[in-house]
Amino acid sequence: MIKKHLGNSNLDIHFVSGGTQANMIIISSILRPYESVISADSGHINIHEAGSIEAVGHKINSVPCSDGKLRVEDIETILSQHKEAPHVVKPKMVYISNSTELGTIYKLDELIKLSNFCKKNGLYLFMDGARLGSALCSKNNDISLENLARLLDIFYIGGTKNGALLGEAIVITNDELKKDFSYNLKQKGALMSKGRVLGLQFATLFEDNLFFDLATHTNLMAQKIAKTLQKCGFNFLCEPETNQIFPILPNMLIKKLEKKYSFYVWKKINKDFSAIRLVTSWATKESAIDKLIASIESGHDI
Amino acid sequence: MIKKHLGNSNLDIHFVSGGTQANMIIISSILRPYESVISADSGHINIHEAGSIEAVGHKINSVPCSDGKLRVEDIETILSQHKEAPHVVKPKMVYISNSTELGTIYKLDELIKLSNFCKKNGLYLFMDGARLGSALCSKNNDISLENLARLLDIFYIGGTKNGALLGEAIVITNDELKKDFSYNLKQKGALMSKGRVLGLQFATLFEDNLFFDLATHTNLMAQKIAKTLQKCGFNFLCEPETNQIFPILPNMLIKKLEKKYSFYVWKKINKDFSAIRLVTSWATKESAIDKLIASIESGHDI
Amino acid sequence: MIKKHLGNSNLDIHFVSGGTQANMIIISSILRPYESVISADSGHINIHEAGSIEAVGHKINSVPCSDGKLRVEDIETILSQHKEAPHVVKPKMVYISNSTELGTIYKLDELIKLSNFCKKNGLYLFMDGARLGSALCSKNNDISLENLARLLDIFYIGGTKNGALLGEAIVITNDELKKDFSYNLKQKGALMSKGRVLGLQFATLFEDNLFFDLATHTNLMAQKIAKTLQKCGFNFLCEPETNQIFPILPNMLIKKLEKKYSFYVWKKINKDFSAIRLVTSWATKESAIDKLIASIESGHDI
Amino acid sequence: MIKKHLGNSNLDIHFVSGGTQANMIIISSILRPYESVISADSGHINIHEAGSIEAVGHKINSVPCSDGKLRVEDIETILSQHKEAPHVVKPKMVYISNSTELGTIYKLDELIKLSNFCKKNGLYLFMDGARLGSALCSKNNDISLENLARLLDIFYIGGTKNGALLGEAIVITNDELKKDFSYNLKQKGALMSKGRVLGLQFATLFEDNLFFDLATHTNLMAQKIAKTLQKCGFNFLCEPETNQIFPILPNMLIKKLEKKYSFYVWKKINKDFSAIRLVTSWATKESAIDKLIASIESGHDI
Repeated sequence: MIKKHLGNSNLDIHFVSGGTQANMIIISSILRPYESVISADSGHINIHEAGSIEAVGHKINSVPCSDGKLRVEDIETILSQHKEAPHVVKPKMVYISNSTELGTIYKLDELIKLSNFCKKNGLYLFMDGARLGSALCSKNNDISLENLARLLDIFYIGGTKNGALLGEAIVITNDELKKDFSYNLKQKGALMSKGRVLGLQFATLFEDNLFFDLATHTNLMAQKIAKTLQKCGFNFLCEPETNQIFPILPNMLIKKLEKKYSFYVWKKINKDFSAIRLVTSWATKESAIDKLIASIESGHDI
Repeated sequence: MIKKHLGNSNLDIHFVSGGTQANMIIISSILRPYESVISADSGHINIHEAGSIEAVGHKINSVPCSDGKLRVEDIETILSQHKEAPHVVKPKMVYISNSTELGTIYKLDELIKLSNFCKKNGLYLFMDGARLGSALCSKNNDISLENLARLLDIFYIGGTKNGALLGEAIVITNDELKKDFSYNLKQKGALMSKGRVLGLQFATLFEDNLFFDLATHTNLMAQKIAKTLQKCGFNFLCEPETNQIFPILPNMLIKKLEKKYSFYVWKKINKDFSAIRLVTSWATKESAIDKLIASIESGHDI
Repeated sequence: MIKKHLGNSNLDIHFVSGGTQANMIIISSILRPYESVISADSGHINIHEAGSIEAVGHKINSVPCSDGKLRVEDIETILSQHKEAPHVVKPKMVYISNSTELGTIYKLDELIKLSNFCKKNGLYLFMDGARLGSALCSKNNDISLENLARLLDIFYIGGTKNGALLGEAIVITNDELKKDFSYNLKQKGALMSKGRVLGLQFATLFEDNLFFDLATHTNLMAQKIAKTLQKCGFNFLCEPETNQIFPILPNMLIKKLEKKYSFYVWKKINKDFSAIRLVTSWATKESAIDKLIASIESGHDI
Repeated sequence: MIKKHLGNSNLDIHFVSGGTQANMIIISSILRPYESVISADSGHINIHEAGSIEAVGHKINSVPCSDGKLRVEDIETILSQHKEAPHVVKPKMVYISNSTELGTIYKLDELIKLSNFCKKNGLYLFMDGARLGSALCSKNNDISLENLARLLDIFYIGGTKNGALLGEAIVITNDELKKDFSYNLKQKGALMSKGRVLGLQFATLFEDNLFFDLATHTNLMAQKIAKTLQKCGFNFLCEPETNQIFPILPNMLIKKLEKKYSFYVWKKINKDFSAIRLVTSWATKESAIDKLIASIESGHDI
C-alpha cells in the first residue's frame, strides 16, 4: 500500500516502533565512524533524543535556524568549517524534519534545492517524517509522497504522531543504503517478534485516506486557534502552518491560560511577551478548541 | 499489579518492547566501558541478538554449558582467566536466562548459590526472563516471583513470548541500579510515546492469573509431545521441562516430519541421529499436537 | 616529581601519548552513557578531534564563547536547556582548556567561580592542559599548579606542545574518578608497552624548571610579535596572552605575509580585515621572530 | 623503505604507537556496525586488549585453536553458525596473528589457503604483525614480506616488540580499505603531533637489515633454551618456533625456577606438570640464557 502511495516499487520499507529508534538506526546504519550529520539546532536528534545519535558514535553538526528549516547556505557553512581533514569530522548526511520542530514545512522548491546540493556534494539527504502527515496536509504544502521518494535518499512516515498506537515506516530509496539494513534493526532492538503489530497500523492508515484525514483534522484544529490569535493581533514565532503553533502572547495572558491548560512556554521574547507551544492531535475535539478560543478571547479582553 | 505479585514495592519497573532491547538497555546502563558480562555460550545475548551487546561496547565472556545453565564453577573459570588487570576486561555481571535457550530451568537452590556467589564477588546477577512464564509454570519449578525479587539485582518478565503482542517488564531490585534508568530507555529508542500500549499488555496478563494460565497451557502442549517421544524410546538433548524441547530423532524420521512441520534441526548427534527443536506457544491447539504425535508414532512405526 | 610540583601526593597520575587520546579517555571513563560534557564552541574536543568524544558515545553541549573561555553563565544556559529528563542528555562534566584555543587564559578568580559552581551542581570540572605551560607562564597568569590540584577534579599537563616528543600527564584529584582508570587506558590503546618513553619526557621537564623555561620562551616570542603589531595600531581578536595570538590585519598585508610565512587565516572580520593565527613554540628562534617583525613593519609601511 | 621491502608501491602505510591501537583502528575502520571479526580464542584481540574491539562496537567470533593458528575449517565453523540473518552478526573479517600468541607461525601454504578462502567468501584477511619479525625470522618460516602484501588485505609490522621504543606500521593493500583511513587515526587518538617519533623508529629498523637482525637474535636466544629442554626430554605445548616457547615442566622444577626467574605459568597439564611461557627479546643477552640453561639442567638433575 505504501509503495503504491509513493508511486515507486523499487524501494525498501521497514517498520520500527518510534522516531528516536528510526533516527538512531538510519543514521548509524549509513555513516562511517568519522562521518557526521548536519541538522538544524532545533532538530529532534539534536535536543530531544537523550544523545542517541552520539551514543551510536556520531557527531551532529548543528546550525541555528530560526524557523527550524535547514537551507543550502546552512549546509555550506558547516562544510566550510570542516576542511581540515583528518582533524575534523566529515559531514556526510543532512537531516531535516518535515514538519519541523517549529511547526513549519518545506516547500517543493526548497526540497529540490537541498536535494540537488546534496547530490552534488556527496551528502545523503534524510527526512525525519515523524510529523510528515501534518506537513503534507498543511494548507501551504506543495510536496507529494512521490516527490519525497524521488528527492530523498531515505525518510520515514510517522505513524505514532498521526493516530497509530506506535510505528514509523522507514522508506529507503537509495539502492546503496538498502543492503543489510535489517541487521541494524535487530542489533538496535527494533525487530519485533510480532511485527504485524506495526504492519497493521500502516495497513489501516493507508488502505484508504485515513492517514491524510487524521492529519487534516489535526491541522484544522490548530489553524482555528491560530486564526483567533491573529484576529486578536498576536504574532507568531514562525508561520502557523501545521498542528504545532508558537504564538507570542503577553505573559499575563499566559499565566491565566496556564491555570486551565497544559503547554510549554517555549521562549522569552521580551520582558512582557513569550512564545508558547500549542499542539493539536488527531484526537483533539473541536469543542476543546472552542473552549480554548473562548479563554484566549476573554483573557485577552481583560 | 506486578509489584503485588513480586511481594515487594521497593522496586522500579520499566516497560520496553522486546527482549533484545531489554538486554541491551540493562547491560549498557549498568556496566562501565571496560566491564563485561558472563553468559552461557548458548545465551541469547551471545548468539541471537546480532551483536547488540558489543554494539553498546561490552564484551560477553561466554562459557560452554551443555544444558544452557550457568553454574558457579563456570563463573569461577571466567574470573580466573581475568586476573591480569588492566589487560583484560573486568567481569562485572552474570547473565542467565530462565527458562534457558535449551528449554531447561533453574532450581531454587541453584539460584541461591549463584546469588550468594555474585554478592560475594561484586557481580550483578541479571535474569533474562523472556521465557520466564514457561519456567515458573514448569512441573519441575520451585522458584517464585518473590524469590526472584530477592535473589536477583535486575530481571525482566517476558510478555512477548507469553501471549502479549509486545512488551517486557524490567524489574530493578538493587537500589544502585535504579538511578537515571529512564535516560537509557530514551537514548536507546525504547521510550514509547504511547507507553500505555505496553502497560495494557501487562495489566491484562497480571490482573488475574492469565500470565500463568497461558504459560501452563504452553508447557502442557510440549510435555504431551515429550511423553510420546519418551514412550517411543527417544532421548533428549536436555530434560524436557518447558515449552522448548530438543528430542534426538533418527534422521529418517526427521526427514518425514519436515514434509509436514516447520522446525529447526538443532544439532547433529551422530550419523543416524540429530536433535531437533520443537516449540509450543500459548496459541498452540491440542489438536495440532495430536496430529504431530500421530505423525511421530506412524513415522516411527515404519 | 609532578606530585611535588602539585603540592599533593594524594592524586593519581597516568601518562598518555597525546591530547585527543587524553580527552577521549578521561571523558569516556567518567560519564555514564546518557551524560554529556559542556564545552566552549571553540573547545578542541568540539571541533578538532574528528568526533572522538561522540565516537565514545557522548554529546558535547557547546556554547558560543567569543574569547574561548567558559563562564558560569554559559553553564547555566546549558543546564536550563536540559530540564526535560529523560528526553535530553544530562550534562555532568565541564570541559575547559587553559590556555584556550584562542590563546586566552583563566584567572584564579574565574577558576574558583567555576569550581564552586560545579561542586554545587554535581558537575565534574576537567581542564585540558595541552597548552598548560603557556598558560601558567603568561604574564597575566595568577594560577599555580597547586591551585589546579585543589580546584579541578581531573586535568592534564601537556608535554607534546611544550617541548616533549610526546606525552600528556593526566592528574586525577577526585577520589571517585581514580578507580580502575588504567583499564580505560588499555582499552583505548593508550597503555604503552614501553611506558618509560612517556615517563622520561616528564622526568626531564620536571626535574628542574625546564617545563616552565620552555613555556616562558615560547610566550616571549609571541609577545614580541604582539608588541610590534600593537605599535603598528593593529587590534586582536582576543587579548594576546600566550603563544597563540590572533591579530586582525588588512587583507593586503596578509597576502604579502602568506608569501613568506605559513599560518591560518582564522576569521573574516570585514571586507578589508581578517584575523590570522600566529603560534610560536619552544623551538622558535628570536631571529625568526625578528624577520617576521621586519616583514610586518615593511609590509605595513607600504 | 617499507614499500621497497614489500616490493609494492601501491599500498598505504600509516604509523601508530602500539598493537592494541592498531587492532582497534583497523577493525573499526573496516567493519559496519553489525559485522564481526573471526579470531582464534587465543587471539590478542580476544583476551588481552581489555575489550577494545567490543568497545568500538564489534563482536569477536572466537574459535578454540590449540596452537593459536586459525584454519579454513575454523572459519567455516563460524560461518555455518551465522546463517540466520539478521538475528546473528555477519562475520566479515578474519584476524590472524603471526607469530601467534602461542609462538607458532603460519606457513606459506596455510596463508594461501586462508587468503583464497577469504576472497571467495567476501571476508577481509587481516594479520596482526606485532610479532611479525620473530615469525619471518623463524627457522621454519617460508613467508616473505612480498607474500604478505599479496595475500592480505591489511596487516601491520610490529616495531614495539622488535626493538623500537614504540610504533607499528599499518600496511593497507586492498584499495577499498584505503579511503579516509587517517580520519580513524585521528578519532581514536592515534595521530601524533610529532609523528616523526614513529617514522624514525621504522627508518632505523628498515634502512638496513636491523629489523631482521634483531628478530633473528631474539629467536636464537629462545631456541637455545628450547634445545636444552628437548635434550632434557621435555615436551612443549606447541612447537618452539620463535621467541615465545611453552615448555611443559615438572611443577617441582617450575617452583625452583620461580625463585630466580620471572615468567608465567601458562596452563596446568596434569597434577605433576605445567606449561610455562618463556619469552626472549632483542635485548636478551646470551649470558642470561646460559644461566637459565644451567638452572634448568641442575634443577632437573636433582
